[in-house]
Amino acid sequence: MDTYQDFPIRQDLSFFNFLFILSQVFGGIAIVLVVAWGAYYNQGFAGPSSPGQWFNWHPLLMTLGLIAIQGDSILIYRALRNEAKPRLKSIHAALHFVAFVFVVVGLKAVFDSHNYAKTPIPNLYSLHSWIGISAVIMFAVQFLAGFVSFLYPRVRKSLRSRYLPLHVLGGTMIFILSTCAALMGITEKNIFNKDYHKLPAGAQIGNALGVCIVIFVMLVFYLVSQPAYKRIALAEEQVLPLDYSEEENTAGNSGAIGGDN
Amino acid sequence: MDTYQDFPIRQDLSFFNFLFILSQVFGGIAIVLVVAWGAYYNQGFAGPSSPGQWFNWHPLLMTLGLIAIQGDSILIYRALRNEAKPRLKSIHAALHFVAFVFVVVGLKAVFDSHNYAKTPIPNLYSLHSWIGISAVIMFAVQFLAGFVSFLYPRVRKSLRSRYLPLHVLGGTMIFILSTCAALMGITEKNIFNKDYHKLPAGAQIGNALGVCIVIFVMLVFYLVSQPAYKRIALAEEQVLPLDYSEEENTAGNSGAIGGDN
Repeated sequence: MDTYQDFPIRQDLSFFNFLFILSQVFGGIAIVLVVAWGAYYNQGFAGPSSPGQWFNWHPLLMTLGLIAIQGDSILIYRALRNEAKPRLKSIHAALHFVAFVFVVVGLKAVFDSHNYAKTPIPNLYSLHSWIGISAVIMFAVQFLAGFVSFLYPRVRKSLRSRYLPLHVLGGTMIFILSTCAALMGITEKNIFNKDYHKLPAGAQIGNALGVCIVIFVMLVFYLVSQPAYKRIALAEEQVLPLDYSEEENTAGNSGAIGGDN
Repeated sequence: MDTYQDFPIRQDLSFFNFLFILSQVFGGIAIVLVVAWGAYYNQGFAGPSSPGQWFNWHPLLMTLGLIAIQGDSILIYRALRNEAKPRLKSIHAALHFVAFVFVVVGLKAVFDSHNYAKTPIPNLYSLHSWIGISAVIMFAVQFLAGFVSFLYPRVRKSLRSRYLPLHVLGGTMIFILSTCAALMGITEKNIFNKDYHKLPAGAQIGNALGVCIVIFVMLVFYLVSQPAYKRIALAEEQVLPLDYSEEENTAGNSGAIGGDN
């Protein structure tokens, strides 16, 4: 709909910048809380030889991968709007790759801690695990499809353009599913630790972690869904309709968050 | 961005219709499951004199109000696209009013069942309750603001137009928060019922309920975020720029779901 814009275009990004910083603050607090939760209230972090403590890597790595890094990777097209598009795509892919590695190790931590517990715990019985594993599978499929579509040079441009809105919408849904899984995981851990209703320090930390995750996710959602904060193609991208700039204007009306990547 | 369109415009809605029916099927199954969950696996439904069974109204009424009705009320602008805009707005408001009544009774059920249990259970300690009560408060504020802005006749049109994208985005966030709260609530109930890891029938129903809710919500999210399925203003709304048609074209680029209401 909005094809090449006249430039220079002025965007008032002061509120965007404020909310972006706020999102990073809440994302940062979430990481601090999940570390504190594992280190001080859930017996600390350790390797696979101590299944109970090895487990603690699960919430930490999942929060890092599926919430913090995935969120920032979605935000990157608007947060680093002055970078060239190919560079943004590479950073987006690299961040998602790091997130994926964290997720794989995070999954190993939870499976190991179940399998090697004194009394082994079944895997994949809870709603948390069903939604979580679905999010991870969708994440992997989306990562592969995105990589092939947008970074492999031989893909037809028309195919790229048609896939982009689906990629954006799929990413949004995976991010929301990840959030649901995180909140259910926190709920499980808080209840399993007993005395949740008395709200001991560990449960307070768990709840606060959940609240920070929700605020972070809502801020990301808001920042990438506001059309006023849409990334405007750089001057050189507008002048030269290069290979990579052709996707610029196809997703703006996709309706989902992150419609400008 | 997209102002008055030439008409008649052809929209291929066959896939929309298929997915819409699918959404109603999964929403319907969710209701059946939450009733079965209460009736057969959680000691049945009863009035306030039996706190344990009175509780069962909580998941039922919340699923009805915050998931099923709220979802369909968001969908209505696209599902009943041939209705006139003022009628759609009235149905949207009426559905949200019904949802709100369900939610209030659903909250009373959980507070009562906590307060009047043999051993009273504290209120509002869990992450589920924190996120859930936030969703309800935001729902109430949004309902009031929406009612005043879009149905009270004396509000300035420019104010309406400016509020609409925020209303749409706010509604999306409340719907997602409600989903998170529902999934955490199911997780809580499944764990409190013990033996969750053995996946007894009640836990299977709880998990299946969660999966149906997630599929319903994702279908709603998809259907209202696809620009191809956007409601096109009726001929008479296009010819006559009446009071109510002025909002038609302001939210299309809001980026969030339901951008056409």
